[in-house]
Amino acid sequence: MKYCSLCGATVSSKIPQGDNVMRYVCDACDTVHYQNPKIVAGCIVTWQDRILLCRRAIEPRYGLWTIPAGFMELGETANAAAARETLEEACAVVEIDELFALYNIPHVSQVYIIFKAHLNAPEYSPGEESLETELFSVDEIPWEELAFPVVSAALERFVEIRDETPHRPFVDDIIR
Amino acid sequence: MKYCSLCGATVSSKIPQGDNVMRYVCDACDTVHYQNPKIVAGCIVTWQDRILLCRRAIEPRYGLWTIPAGFMELGETANAAAARETLEEACAVVEIDELFALYNIPHVSQVYIIFKAHLNAPEYSPGEESLETELFSVDEIPWEELAFPVVSAALERFVEIRDETPHRPFVDDIIR
Repeated sequence: MKYCSLCGATVSSKIPQGDNVMRYVCDACDTVHYQNPKIVAGCIVTWQDRILLCRRAIEPRYGLWTIPAGFMELGETANAAAARETLEEACAVVEIDELFALYNIPHVSQVYIIFKAHLNAPEYSPGEESLETELFSVDEIPWEELAFPVVSAALERFVEIRDETPHRPFVDDIIR
Repeated sequence: MKYCSLCGATVSSKIPQGDNVMRYVCDACDTVHYQNPKIVAGCIVTWQDRILLCRRAIEPRYGLWTIPAGFMELGETANAAAARETLEEACAVVEIDELFALYNIPHVSQVYIIFKAHLNAPEYSPGEESLETELFSVDEIPWEELAFPVVSAALERFVEIRDETPHRPFVDDIIR
């Protein structure tokens, strides 16, 4: 960040009065430009005993497999964001069932909010951001070709505890 | 937003190619300036059977009571953010126990991540952003003087289900 988005003047990095963190502060109008972590909302989607994955048609991690997930938009709920991302990436209409887990990824300032969801019919196809979409049984999950550590962690845990009912949502950290 | 924070040129509201949401896009360098919801991390802190609340010394809702909570910072986990906010607002060192709930507040583009936490000793005092800090028994909670609907909702639910073990974290929406 070099310029104030409100007045166009230059900004400087400094600790504002009463604060204890470096912020971008406008040299002219003194506006403090806060930066905050972003939420990635996604879901582990099942149809019977299989899991829906998408092969990425975009960078980063082009060609690798992921659960449907993406940045939450203004005015949305996390649940709606997870369902929207599944519609965009896998052309699939899901019902969100419950919270699966929350993953902190502090080195990229992201929090993943991951839901359990299901399809009411095995209807899906690649959206613009996907090369392929496919339902995998647990034995078929392409563990070596998953796009991100958080996807691996969530799927491993999902497989591990899938028979535990009721599910208890949990928080975990992905540390680089 | 009126100016590009990268190059200082003016921005326009438009839907970028391949997108379906209005964004601020730089008229000169074409940078798309995404805006995303913010995470507020907080906790319901107990000491024995009492709950720690803070009376706000800042706007909005000056003078009203809240749980310790605030905007998550870059590079933090939600758990660490909730503990830091409690230290800042109530000068209290807490141990975070588990996730309590996640609240979507879409009309202000916020997601509250609320943990259960406890004090190891009844040691607390008002931080700079608090007028008072106090431990309330359930019967003493100042229901009519709580700062935000999300605080009321979380405390009501906490009281309602406090004897259910194990706790199952849940997701709810605060709709205006």
